[in-house]
Amino acid sequence: MGILERLNAGEVVIGDGGFVFALEKRGYVKAGPWTPEAAAEHPEAGEKQTKDQRQSLRLLPWGGAQINEAACDLAREVANEGDALVAGGVSQTPSYLSCKSEKDVKAIFKKQLDVFVKKDVDFLIAEYFEHVEEAVWAVEVLKETGKPVAASLCIGPDGDMHGVSAAECAVKLVKAGAEIVGVNCHFDPLTCVKAVKLMKEGVEKAGLKAHYMVQPLAFHTPDCNCQGFIDLPEFPFGLEPRILTRWDMHKYAREAYNVGIRFIGGCCGFEPYHIRAVAEELATDRGFLPAGSEKHGSWGAGLEMHTKPWVRARARRGYWEELKPASGRPLCPSMSTPDSWGVTKGDAALMQQKEATSQDQLKQLFDRSK
Amino acid sequence: MGILERLNAGEVVIGDGGFVFALEKRGYVKAGPWTPEAAAEHPEAGEKQTKDQRQSLRLLPWGGAQINEAACDLAREVANEGDALVAGGVSQTPSYLSCKSEKDVKAIFKKQLDVFVKKDVDFLIAEYFEHVEEAVWAVEVLKETGKPVAASLCIGPDGDMHGVSAAECAVKLVKAGAEIVGVNCHFDPLTCVKAVKLMKEGVEKAGLKAHYMVQPLAFHTPDCNCQGFIDLPEFPFGLEPRILTRWDMHKYAREAYNVGIRFIGGCCGFEPYHIRAVAEELATDRGFLPAGSEKHGSWGAGLEMHTKPWVRARARRGYWEELKPASGRPLCPSMSTPDSWGVTKGDAALMQQKEATSQDQLKQLFDRSK
Amino acid sequence: MGILERLNAGEVVIGDGGFVFALEKRGYVKAGPWTPEAAAEHPEAGEKQTKDQRQSLRLLPWGGAQINEAACDLAREVANEGDALVAGGVSQTPSYLSCKSEKDVKAIFKKQLDVFVKKDVDFLIAEYFEHVEEAVWAVEVLKETGKPVAASLCIGPDGDMHGVSAAECAVKLVKAGAEIVGVNCHFDPLTCVKAVKLMKEGVEKAGLKAHYMVQPLAFHTPDCNCQGFIDLPEFPFGLEPRILTRWDMHKYAREAYNVGIRFIGGCCGFEPYHIRAVAEELATDRGFLPAGSEKHGSWGAGLEMHTKPWVRARARRGYWEELKPASGRPLCPSMSTPDSWGVTKGDAALMQQKEATSQDQLKQLFDRSK
Amino acid sequence: MGILERLNAGEVVIGDGGFVFALEKRGYVKAGPWTPEAAAEHPEAGEKQTKDQRQSLRLLPWGGAQINEAACDLAREVANEGDALVAGGVSQTPSYLSCKSEKDVKAIFKKQLDVFVKKDVDFLIAEYFEHVEEAVWAVEVLKETGKPVAASLCIGPDGDMHGVSAAECAVKLVKAGAEIVGVNCHFDPLTCVKAVKLMKEGVEKAGLKAHYMVQPLAFHTPDCNCQGFIDLPEFPFGLEPRILTRWDMHKYAREAYNVGIRFIGGCCGFEPYHIRAVAEELATDRGFLPAGSEKHGSWGAGLEMHTKPWVRARARRGYWEELKPASGRPLCPSMSTPDSWGVTKGDAALMQQKEATSQDQLKQLFDRSK
Repeated sequence: MGILERLNAGEVVIGDGGFVFALEKRGYVKAGPWTPEAAAEHPEAGEKQTKDQRQSLRLLPWGGAQINEAACDLAREVANEGDALVAGGVSQTPSYLSCKSEKDVKAIFKKQLDVFVKKDVDFLIAEYFEHVEEAVWAVEVLKETGKPVAASLCIGPDGDMHGVSAAECAVKLVKAGAEIVGVNCHFDPLTCVKAVKLMKEGVEKAGLKAHYMVQPLAFHTPDCNCQGFIDLPEFPFGLEPRILTRWDMHKYAREAYNVGIRFIGGCCGFEPYHIRAVAEELATDRGFLPAGSEKHGSWGAGLEMHTKPWVRARARRGYWEELKPASGRPLCPSMSTPDSWGVTKGDAALMQQKEATSQDQLKQLFDRSK
Repeated sequence: MGILERLNAGEVVIGDGGFVFALEKRGYVKAGPWTPEAAAEHPEAGEKQTKDQRQSLRLLPWGGAQINEAACDLAREVANEGDALVAGGVSQTPSYLSCKSEKDVKAIFKKQLDVFVKKDVDFLIAEYFEHVEEAVWAVEVLKETGKPVAASLCIGPDGDMHGVSAAECAVKLVKAGAEIVGVNCHFDPLTCVKAVKLMKEGVEKAGLKAHYMVQPLAFHTPDCNCQGFIDLPEFPFGLEPRILTRWDMHKYAREAYNVGIRFIGGCCGFEPYHIRAVAEELATDRGFLPAGSEKHGSWGAGLEMHTKPWVRARARRGYWEELKPASGRPLCPSMSTPDSWGVTKGDAALMQQKEATSQDQLKQLFDRSK
Repeated sequence: MGILERLNAGEVVIGDGGFVFALEKRGYVKAGPWTPEAAAEHPEAGEKQTKDQRQSLRLLPWGGAQINEAACDLAREVANEGDALVAGGVSQTPSYLSCKSEKDVKAIFKKQLDVFVKKDVDFLIAEYFEHVEEAVWAVEVLKETGKPVAASLCIGPDGDMHGVSAAECAVKLVKAGAEIVGVNCHFDPLTCVKAVKLMKEGVEKAGLKAHYMVQPLAFHTPDCNCQGFIDLPEFPFGLEPRILTRWDMHKYAREAYNVGIRFIGGCCGFEPYHIRAVAEELATDRGFLPAGSEKHGSWGAGLEMHTKPWVRARARRGYWEELKPASGRPLCPSMSTPDSWGVTKGDAALMQQKEATSQDQLKQLFDRSK
Repeated sequence: MGILERLNAGEVVIGDGGFVFALEKRGYVKAGPWTPEAAAEHPEAGEKQTKDQRQSLRLLPWGGAQINEAACDLAREVANEGDALVAGGVSQTPSYLSCKSEKDVKAIFKKQLDVFVKKDVDFLIAEYFEHVEEAVWAVEVLKETGKPVAASLCIGPDGDMHGVSAAECAVKLVKAGAEIVGVNCHFDPLTCVKAVKLMKEGVEKAGLKAHYMVQPLAFHTPDCNCQGFIDLPEFPFGLEPRILTRWDMHKYAREAYNVGIRFIGGCCGFEPYHIRAVAEELATDRGFLPAGSEKHGSWGAGLEMHTKPWVRARARRGYWEELKPASGRPLCPSMSTPDSWGVTKGDAALMQQKEATSQDQLKQLFDRSK
């Protein structure tokens, strides 16, 4: 069954997690460029991160054609082991921020599509867009393939970087042809669910129909402004204290389900056990437990076999649901003040350049950041 | 070169990370029993966690003979890819806590050794002992093989669970024949380094000689009592906010090196990027960068290529060294009050039993924990 | 000069602090009923809290006629020592919450006014109203005296308890005849300033004119819902960690001034040194330092004479402006979840009753609060 | 009855609070020099801070003879209203830190005593000494008057600034003739109680006898080093988030009582309601409630009369005992890193000088503090 058949049948589809962040921590990807060349260099590394049989395997568009081809093959192989789907994705372009024309930007998306069509992915995602205008362009290009199209912005409840509301963004994407709309990345789970709720209300108010998806961060971000976790001083190498526990994931999965979202996944920061927790929370709704649950035991049941009796006493739902975990960092605050440069499309500092950033340019940036 | 030749030559040996915790998060191991049956069930999973060429690959003793044999083969194969060593390990036994005799406990260690001898591991570790008395028994058994023996307690600066000081513990272990002594697990890096420093001072004061090792948690634990992180309310499923950043690891590696420790590794919570950070901090001391560093760039240098200019401004050592990362959890405290049941060897609640914990027993534990 | 002459002339009027909270901590007032009977019982206690010559001395309406008469005399005596004004105040009534008629509620205000008229206070304040409807009734009654009337709601940026926006509230009060409008109590300084800013924008948009006042808490309350600090679990006996420093007060005073507020004071939690800090921040704008500044030294200058050299090193503005003060409470969170019973006018639990709360009623409340 | 008769009879004596800090917040004292000239300038201000009938009124030695005379008269007058005692105090001298001789330092103490003898205070306190050597000199001088002598160091459990243990300090003071020994200032209540416990154990082990006193800060200081709160970055103008609640005081009073301390008071940061809480906790032990309790109601009982039902639900002991109060400061940490200049007696930076600190000297200090 394809993605739309599943959603139309009322199934809950569990999306995959955050590949580039996880690969960075395993030593295969460089933070900054984030190019997932591991797909070509270390196919077994990408393969290892595929745990949950239901998850759809995304292929993000940072790599060139060769990387994407290798990634398609890899994803298909893993998907075939279970009952998973393979998605090909495009995301926002530096060209758009550098004020290139609609035609130029669309040409970039088209070029990426060739590989996905050749490898016959199951569906397409226009993902990680900060500006709905560019996302609409992407959807228009993806629609030409005839495959199901999902569109996901990296925005929060306050809307896109040009001030378009979440509700209005959703309406524009559905009108452009997206069958599934939602958000991914940039904000924590409950913030993302709130944003998709607003999108859903907008779509319904406009008399339209769609399916909804959410793929949030696995980091707590109550202190973000509209640009999301990129602006937090901890991004990307000091985010550890913000990582969600598996119990936070239970709350997220339930909340997303209650709002009516049926494509529920994760983005940066998600590890396999986070996705498993989402699937465990929804096990009764879906009718089955995810792969890997035999190594878990719901709500910490496996602790019944721990040697220390006071740890055995923690083998119950109430304990973990009520826990307020300490950071062990008494010299650190609980919230940060985000950078707020307020630059967006057209700002000189965002212009693409062929050369690496020079030391002079870095010096200017350091000074500006003080 | 064997482990002792390397240490005698003044080399820094980087120990491996925390297998069972990492495998649990990837879905291969169950928290509670923590049996690493993945070695037999999913050999490719264990294999994937071997990144750094210098690390010694430990084999912990929770599995039966079959699991340990499979693990030995796997470790040897990965070690051969680089220049790594394979270690076989024994650790504390429920029998000791149940007050079995020295003879009975030693018999358990002997039985485990058979596999390690047959597979010809490079050296042996008596590891994760809360009572130095039991560790001494283990060292005495391990010494009979003629292989180099390391001994590592899971204690902090306050000494073992029977109140023997860290200095005295070290002296006993060296006298029993251990060539390398130190601590692992249970406490955060700086606490563990402090404990090993006390051990070193004790050994030197007694006119003895040894090498020193440290394999701490990758969790901040300033609030622990003598039992370590097992007593923290967050153990083991709510420890996320305590995870060390890579920059915390730099401080740890430098501190350990300055104290004179030359076998520097990690235990529960360590991910590959943590071990890489340890090796990057010591790169000038060792003369080379670790594998995987080409995907990193020291001190965040890779961020020079990030699209957002304010993130590029973070590509410098000073930024990450001074960062005090927020938890994003304003409803959580920074420290916890550990459980302090104060039970140790001989307490009824610690007695081994063949049957699974019954619901009645669990109920009693819940009541006692209130 | 009267209050309006001063404001029309562009003067900054510094309001007084929080009498009942301060008297409670000195042992003269009971938290809960908060009746300031100290005015009659211990006139010297009320007198002692009058420091700053410019402050207007409010008389709150919780006391009966006898208490209010004594308070008027006391306030006048202290005011005459300097150049201060005496204000008489009325505030929200339990009768309104119990759904009494406009006529009944107005009768209560009228009765209180008799004392203020007899004692010839300088101006009147309708203060601490959660519902603008009742505040308008109060203003209408106060206006009949011919004295200047200020109206101050205990609301935040989200408006009153019936959902009327802050802007609309302000317009209603100005139309009812209030010459000064603003907010007091319930929220921290920056939140209150934000609310008054919205009120000012509303008044100006409606083509009306008014002066603006703000008398916030001296407690940080970023975690409040629309009901304010009453809902915080710390209210009223655990608020200590939230107390603002004198440096927080500098920021508040500057922010209020920049927004265009010229009647700047304080409410619960303000101590004399808080008011002094407000007046010190505005010293250049007002042309003089407040009484008591000779015992201070701006920005910690007095520390130049401290015996410890590292404390002398703190005698400078930059040090105190940048300080992020620690709580010394590592087991406490930084934010709370407010009680949110959501009960308002008309709810049975808010009905006035003659008898003291019975043990049965308390039991019901405890159960409801779990 | 004198102080010794009361203590010998098993009475609990409640000490007074922290005059200079409280006067600073009311605008009568300058932080830095901390000279309590208010006694002479504003006698009514000192008078106002005397609430609890049992408290002993201390006179600290920062003022010259004229101030001390005025203070004696004032204290006696207030003490006579109730059943309180008047104490005269001497404390550490800049001369000692500047390495003056025993004879010179003793001459300073002698000069101060003249006023206390003339005004016939009830007993004498050698208080706030960082070095036991100087405290012993003070006790020797005070003993010559024939009045009861108490000796109180500003040290924590780690002993004095020269490394003399708390136990040894106590033994020296008792041998020098002090009938009451203990600590005051510099640390929070539970830390101070711990220090006095060590002193008591030392005295008893030496076969001596004494009474014990404790007068801690009203600030939480878990992060202090041996120099106490002077080293905290928040000292003295950013300590607000550390202020103890009244419920913290209950725990302190009980703990001090259990340890066997019978002279229980407070120092910097104590407000009248803190002393009242101490006396309320010990009401059953002492047989009566303190003055001011009629305005309180134990454990928040006064809240039974609050208008909001959810606040009435807080009128019970369990609620306040379990509360973990939030700071409302999500950008602040819970602990600080103390300044640790490690300078003590003899360091050039501690030398007395007649002239005010010059701008050059301040500049040097700023640079050193970075």
